[in-house]
Amino acid sequence: MGSAMVFPLVDSGFEVNLWGTWLDDDLIDGARAGEHPRLKKSLPESVGLFKSTELAEAIDGADMIFIGVSSEGFVPVFEEALKVMQSPRPVFTLTKGFSILRGTPQRTSTAGTTLFKETFGNGPLHWTSIGGPVKAFELARAIPSPAIYGTASAQAVATGRSFQTDYYRVRTTTDVAGVELCSALKNVYAMGVGLCDGLFHERFPRNYHNLSSLLFNQSIREMAEVVAAEGGKTETAYDLAGVGDLYVTAQSGKNQYFGYLVGEGMAPEEAYQKMQSEGQLAEGYLALKAGRDWLSSNHPDIVSELPLFNTLSHIALENGPVESSLREMVVNHL
Amino acid sequence: MGSAMVFPLVDSGFEVNLWGTWLDDDLIDGARAGEHPRLKKSLPESVGLFKSTELAEAIDGADMIFIGVSSEGFVPVFEEALKVMQSPRPVFTLTKGFSILRGTPQRTSTAGTTLFKETFGNGPLHWTSIGGPVKAFELARAIPSPAIYGTASAQAVATGRSFQTDYYRVRTTTDVAGVELCSALKNVYAMGVGLCDGLFHERFPRNYHNLSSLLFNQSIREMAEVVAAEGGKTETAYDLAGVGDLYVTAQSGKNQYFGYLVGEGMAPEEAYQKMQSEGQLAEGYLALKAGRDWLSSNHPDIVSELPLFNTLSHIALENGPVESSLREMVVNHL
Repeated sequence: MGSAMVFPLVDSGFEVNLWGTWLDDDLIDGARAGEHPRLKKSLPESVGLFKSTELAEAIDGADMIFIGVSSEGFVPVFEEALKVMQSPRPVFTLTKGFSILRGTPQRTSTAGTTLFKETFGNGPLHWTSIGGPVKAFELARAIPSPAIYGTASAQAVATGRSFQTDYYRVRTTTDVAGVELCSALKNVYAMGVGLCDGLFHERFPRNYHNLSSLLFNQSIREMAEVVAAEGGKTETAYDLAGVGDLYVTAQSGKNQYFGYLVGEGMAPEEAYQKMQSEGQLAEGYLALKAGRDWLSSNHPDIVSELPLFNTLSHIALENGPVESSLREMVVNHL
Repeated sequence: MGSAMVFPLVDSGFEVNLWGTWLDDDLIDGARAGEHPRLKKSLPESVGLFKSTELAEAIDGADMIFIGVSSEGFVPVFEEALKVMQSPRPVFTLTKGFSILRGTPQRTSTAGTTLFKETFGNGPLHWTSIGGPVKAFELARAIPSPAIYGTASAQAVATGRSFQTDYYRVRTTTDVAGVELCSALKNVYAMGVGLCDGLFHERFPRNYHNLSSLLFNQSIREMAEVVAAEGGKTETAYDLAGVGDLYVTAQSGKNQYFGYLVGEGMAPEEAYQKMQSEGQLAEGYLALKAGRDWLSSNHPDIVSELPLFNTLSHIALENGPVESSLREMVVNHL
């Protein structure tokens, strides 16, 4: 995703340095050789390319930084970036999920703010969490793609809007919590739609959409509930960060596929490992684990009002039976 | 849809008579012979089957009536039903779309109430408009299916809940307008997702979902706007009647297919006729025409705030170019 963002940034007139983590040296090698291996196309020529050992050079002189790593990678990568940052910079993060900071799952902006303050004290932090239905492969092909920038910083709003192109659309909201929670939870809930696909695609080919729709709809209700409990706006769940991003994630992608494998009968841990061995990260599985802990610590009072979340936990974290768990949820809670 | 409803009604203990309109004699013949031609299965044995000339017998002694015809058929069918009704009966309607009563498009409950009062004066009308993601073929196979009953009648709420089974779930709301408008408009907006499929499926196979999601998301925003203008609740658009039903309709079905044909380059009127010749009604095309008139008569002030609706009008009713119209909308309005 970080790689794909270079297209709108270059097209809107920015100079961009792209740095790859210690897991991404092959991506940078590929991009240098002429084709980005994941995006399957060359990057704009003006983009500076930096391998994992070259973080200081990549950040040197940058006016702002974008972080596009997975939720697992956010804390270690941001820690490295802070070590070589000379002064506070505005941070835009594309990470979707919960971050684990010193053993505790938290919203990425919470973890990021803690780390930032440890380095820069109260030096100004212009933080933006980016959500919305923007798949990297499509963004790199200029498919019209809408992002939602959650930030409390007026400066970051103005900067974010300057990234806009004909195909990369930027809306803004002050509801950082809402954007972050929807972005994390949509990966969880997309697994639910995938479960349904895996469970029924042979028995009822293309004819189980009433249930998919019930799961999709319930996902939005529950995301709105979690956002409200955290003090965010339910509207955030009903717009790009929620409805829009869950839609794209339920259509295709890694989390839908993880659910599909489990729906077909594979054990969740086995499905996660199989995907990882193929270079695919099922972030929804991690977000489900982290989200369950985060909810029970931060909002224990609403857990019983999230029947789909609880059913997905039962299936994916406790190896509960797929079909009977879904049917019981429908009859008892929906 | 009327035929499929017999399954949960019989399973929840009701005696059911199924009457087919003058367009449906073949369905009744098929059902009598052992297989319903559309549902591809036999109906429960206890169901009484009545052909078009047998309406009075079908209604005789009925405690309530369900109407499951298309939006075009609602007025003529309800007029016929009122002629043979001995006394006021509660009405449950599955019709989704605008009805045209004496040349004027209106919500189906508005048209229905007018006709009812002309027959029974102020005799009590227990009216329920039913929405939600319930495709007939799936309901007939007991795929878990959630309906939302919009009614102002406490008696109808209780009756509606008694239809519930393990697979047919009934939620209720007093927001009749919201349920009706979402049910009509989701057919319009599903055409938008279909347009995108037809336009891009060859050029970017499975890789245009950022745009599909933007259209899906915008559809929900606009449905909420129309519902609010009519005095309904925006929550209705964010729940089963809106998000849920648009999801099922965008995945498959006649309106998505109509959009698909137009997206591939077929003229809208030609696509409508082609589908009709194959026995498929693109109700979204009718709802777009009727909805445009209804909006300009009833809510002219919000028309400019519905860029996707207007773009779909331009494409489907004025033969506007598909791709450039969509791209202009994205750049200028989203």
